[in-house]
Amino acid sequence: MPHDFQMTRRVEFSDTDMAGIMHFSNFFLFMEAAETAFLRSLGFSVALGRGGLDLCLPRVHAECDYLAPLRFEDEVLIHLVVEKKGASSLTYRFHFYRLDGPSRVEAARGRITLAYVRRQADGAFKAAPLPGALAEVLEQAPAQANGS
Amino acid sequence: MPHDFQMTRRVEFSDTDMAGIMHFSNFFLFMEAAETAFLRSLGFSVALGRGGLDLCLPRVHAECDYLAPLRFEDEVLIHLVVEKKGASSLTYRFHFYRLDGPSRVEAARGRITLAYVRRQADGAFKAAPLPGALAEVLEQAPAQANGS
Amino acid sequence: MPHDFQMTRRVEFSDTDMAGIMHFSNFFLFMEAAETAFLRSLGFSVALGRGGLDLCLPRVHAECDYLAPLRFEDEVLIHLVVEKKGASSLTYRFHFYRLDGPSRVEAARGRITLAYVRRQADGAFKAAPLPGALAEVLEQAPAQANGS
Amino acid sequence: MPHDFQMTRRVEFSDTDMAGIMHFSNFFLFMEAAETAFLRSLGFSVALGRGGLDLCLPRVHAECDYLAPLRFEDEVLIHLVVEKKGASSLTYRFHFYRLDGPSRVEAARGRITLAYVRRQADGAFKAAPLPGALAEVLEQAPAQANGS
Repeated sequence: MPHDFQMTRRVEFSDTDMAGIMHFSNFFLFMEAAETAFLRSLGFSVALGRGGLDLCLPRVHAECDYLAPLRFEDEVLIHLVVEKKGASSLTYRFHFYRLDGPSRVEAARGRITLAYVRRQADGAFKAAPLPGALAEVLEQAPAQANGS
Repeated sequence: MPHDFQMTRRVEFSDTDMAGIMHFSNFFLFMEAAETAFLRSLGFSVALGRGGLDLCLPRVHAECDYLAPLRFEDEVLIHLVVEKKGASSLTYRFHFYRLDGPSRVEAARGRITLAYVRRQADGAFKAAPLPGALAEVLEQAPAQANGS
Repeated sequence: MPHDFQMTRRVEFSDTDMAGIMHFSNFFLFMEAAETAFLRSLGFSVALGRGGLDLCLPRVHAECDYLAPLRFEDEVLIHLVVEKKGASSLTYRFHFYRLDGPSRVEAARGRITLAYVRRQADGAFKAAPLPGALAEVLEQAPAQANGS
Repeated sequence: MPHDFQMTRRVEFSDTDMAGIMHFSNFFLFMEAAETAFLRSLGFSVALGRGGLDLCLPRVHAECDYLAPLRFEDEVLIHLVVEKKGASSLTYRFHFYRLDGPSRVEAARGRITLAYVRRQADGAFKAAPLPGALAEVLEQAPAQANGS
């Protein structure tokens, strides 16, 4: 069962800011894109209830540590690890690597925690277990993988 | 009846790109913010059917001519003019002025056309007349105002 | 000599808005991404003077006609055509196709015009000819291709 | 000496996503806007060396806990607190309050840490002390204020 995923993405001009580097908020968009691709690779969608949207996965925590800047046209490897698969939440770790030159440079480390919630008849959201089909294919990474 | 509206907004750091100026796509966000504030000043919302969303105002055309760059922390005056109020569409003109120094500089001119559509039972959208209450308060600008 | 270019890109969750479709401003980011990839395929960069930035390609006009909505996870084909290669400006046309189901649907048509400018010693920008190396490899599309 | 700051901002249509709420990455843009306004209120700019950019304040850490969703047109109070003023770094805490109805609702809590760095002659960045003029006017909040 998969507990990690990798994808590459290039820094676009619109991702940069006047300091000449990728704006710090855009690392979160890259994390989300990796999560989307990860779930899609498993046959699922971030928008689980697409259309009805009765079940969704709101983020309850997001963080990022910035180690080295990313610049326009840099090719970036995003490594997603399933850090924790809880009863009604899921935590991903993300490692960003800049794929320049002879050796790759770690540019950032991120973490996103999302909750499983279900929309009630009155429109309010309530914690819910991860859908069975998704729970079956998602695996928590072994401890050593998390620490990578 | 109102046919124009003005608001000011400051260029944020995240609005800039590595060329040190506001990214060209962000002028469209400023236009939309002005439209939102205009409708709100009239007691309406861009999201007319907020919640149900059975009626909405999708954009069918957007354009912008860039005359002078906007930079971080520039204060910008956005002047919205109702250029055309049609049976099932609405066109706004926008003028951007940089409020620096002794005289204001025109930085850009934009135009957005939106359609009135209603979501059908089958989920498809169909052209619809502008809601009466909004049609009553929205006025097309006189020709000379459009040319400003 | 190349006068058009194609790339595909998927609509990300962050590209959508509360209407459930790609926000209209994001079509301009997709156009820019296609231009970037096109120039990169020719060995050039949108940021021609990267670092020094003494020569750059500011946008002077951008427009888009929206024909059909794009939704989360839609795969989109972006077709760039060099519509006009002028002495000191360049105009691209863009066609967006949604790659769903048996037949592709045209979702939008865009156009971006950029000027060639050079930063003067006093910091101001002045119109400049397209750099020779780039002018040599860029070709204007034949008339019929533009009309596609 | 000031150790906190408040501003309000409205959620724009473009801030939302298809879940109908403000996209989680946009809370970081609101934090940055509050920081910018805070420094401007003190007579400084986030872009300290604006133009030359020889001194800048890159983010080294950013995080956010999401407590309640923000929706289109919600008016949001952003409360910035100077949590830690270090020798070569600065940490802000942010509290987001939704200003709806009779009582305000805490929507999110964030934190951003930035480093003081100076661009060297070779283009590399090196840790630097906060500029004296800024250090003089910025104060770390008392412990109880941080815990608010």
